[in-house]
Amino acid sequence: MKVTIKSPLDMHLHLRDKEMLKVVAPLSAKSFCAAIIMPNLVPPVTTIEDVVAYKKRILDAIGKENFEPLMTLFFKNSYTYEFLKKAKEHIVGIKLYPSGATTNSEGGVSSMDIEELKETFTAMSELNIPLLVHGETDGFVMDREAEFGSVYEQFATNFPKLKIIMEHITTKNSVDLLDKYDNLYATITVQHLFITLDDVAGGMLKPHLFCKPIAKRYEDREALLKVALSGHPKVMFGSDSAPHPIDKKECCGCAAGVFTAPIALQALAGLFEKNGKLENLQTFVSDNAQRIYGYSPTCKDIELTKEPFIVPSSYEDVVPMFADETLSWSITSIV
Amino acid sequence: MKVTIKSPLDMHLHLRDKEMLKVVAPLSAKSFCAAIIMPNLVPPVTTIEDVVAYKKRILDAIGKENFEPLMTLFFKNSYTYEFLKKAKEHIVGIKLYPSGATTNSEGGVSSMDIEELKETFTAMSELNIPLLVHGETDGFVMDREAEFGSVYEQFATNFPKLKIIMEHITTKNSVDLLDKYDNLYATITVQHLFITLDDVAGGMLKPHLFCKPIAKRYEDREALLKVALSGHPKVMFGSDSAPHPIDKKECCGCAAGVFTAPIALQALAGLFEKNGKLENLQTFVSDNAQRIYGYSPTCKDIELTKEPFIVPSSYEDVVPMFADETLSWSITSIV
Repeated sequence: MKVTIKSPLDMHLHLRDKEMLKVVAPLSAKSFCAAIIMPNLVPPVTTIEDVVAYKKRILDAIGKENFEPLMTLFFKNSYTYEFLKKAKEHIVGIKLYPSGATTNSEGGVSSMDIEELKETFTAMSELNIPLLVHGETDGFVMDREAEFGSVYEQFATNFPKLKIIMEHITTKNSVDLLDKYDNLYATITVQHLFITLDDVAGGMLKPHLFCKPIAKRYEDREALLKVALSGHPKVMFGSDSAPHPIDKKECCGCAAGVFTAPIALQALAGLFEKNGKLENLQTFVSDNAQRIYGYSPTCKDIELTKEPFIVPSSYEDVVPMFADETLSWSITSIV
Repeated sequence: MKVTIKSPLDMHLHLRDKEMLKVVAPLSAKSFCAAIIMPNLVPPVTTIEDVVAYKKRILDAIGKENFEPLMTLFFKNSYTYEFLKKAKEHIVGIKLYPSGATTNSEGGVSSMDIEELKETFTAMSELNIPLLVHGETDGFVMDREAEFGSVYEQFATNFPKLKIIMEHITTKNSVDLLDKYDNLYATITVQHLFITLDDVAGGMLKPHLFCKPIAKRYEDREALLKVALSGHPKVMFGSDSAPHPIDKKECCGCAAGVFTAPIALQALAGLFEKNGKLENLQTFVSDNAQRIYGYSPTCKDIELTKEPFIVPSSYEDVVPMFADETLSWSITSIV
């Protein structure tokens, strides 16, 4: 059995910088046509110069591979219309982090007060720049995303022309918001279609499956699966692939992030096939994103075949999801 | 400021075997007068010979320290009245594990069907042997203990003369059961008075705070604190101190268990003092257990003083709770 994905897109990706960038960028570039690159470096990407320089470092790391890094800025409520008008040529969106919500988010927004965000949100609406949001409060870890739902509703209601992407959603609550507001969209990762908190902490503790937002309940996973498999028009694949070196994952205080870039398409092909929805994989990993972002690349087709793929134990010092396990689908051709 | 605890008791302790036993047994023996020793060795402690031999190994590991290991059997529904009558001389209780619920529990009970447990429970009732229970279903990790509540209710109702100890309770639901059934009692650990799931997985992932049952929500911790601090007469201290070598805690699949034996009394003194309930510490760590188990040792008094105690990074290759942190109370004299 085979399936060919035209121009697969990863709408949420962490490539980091320096040595780690050199390890992981080529892996994403191999499987994907383009990816939205998160700006949470240290310090974060907040100027046009930062964006241009980071994009160049990514392209250098990728070499000759045909892959477009779609750049983002790290949200600041000091961004003005004039600045954003210039920035728009270089970015596809702006990523908003609540301060402290995840890796390298310390410089994020500390208040979700509409008044403080209004000027920048209004400018983004007028310039048609999407807002990408890490939607978690600072509440109890299992409730953070659901609690953030009211913030999404405020944003959506007060800025009806702002395109808001609820990034890496993990709850039924977020899924339900999609059909309630025209201007809310979502990305979903590989891991949140496969796991619940039981996989992270129900048996042995699995640091390589630990991420933010943390995997939730079975009913949440069911809701995510339903919209992903059905090709819901407002749902895009975004891996949130987030590499950390092994000594930051297997230690006494482990960093959050699951590394899926090199195994994402193979895992998704298996999942969609198992659920009898292989025909919707193209929609989930490319078509919806093209329509939502108004971006239509024609850079590569990935042929996947139902042949065993033994996932490596690690890529350099980064351990991927499904390490040492065998997936039922392999990438057999890249054109 | 000082406080003296007469005959402190740890009503739930894992001492393991072999080299680990030699590392951890002296640490418990230093702080406590006696402790109930869990029987989940590999293979589990299921015969009188096992009990006697394990007790001897513990006493050998302890040396001259004045400490009594209170032994238990690993529950089997094949235990008869005749067997238990003989066993009673050597044990203070029988520990029931649902199969697979925690470390080395594979040989536990696979069904909580009253009919299958009746003969052994009836014999235990008649012989006045307490039933110690690891109360978790095989459900979603955050729900397992609350789901087990109905099993506790069945046990309590059907065997009103059986003394049932809900071990290491972690939920408000379990606390509420204490006042509903005369024959339900509980132990509470150090860690569940200090942490919630946020401490385990809300920031970085902390394998050394990962245990079964997993730490729950803030309202659960509040309920546990309330009964512990108030000296509720049916609540006893049981550390569930559960050592694992560091390579089983900081790895790709980490074992469940928090090691607290050498820091428990110091941490509890600080907690009770901070909450203005130092006068109830004696009740929580000894008096209630003596009354519930009908056991009155007079072996040692531990004097604690409000002086900084820097918790070691590790005891041999076992990392304790609060490693490298400074507790506000120290053990200053053992008489």
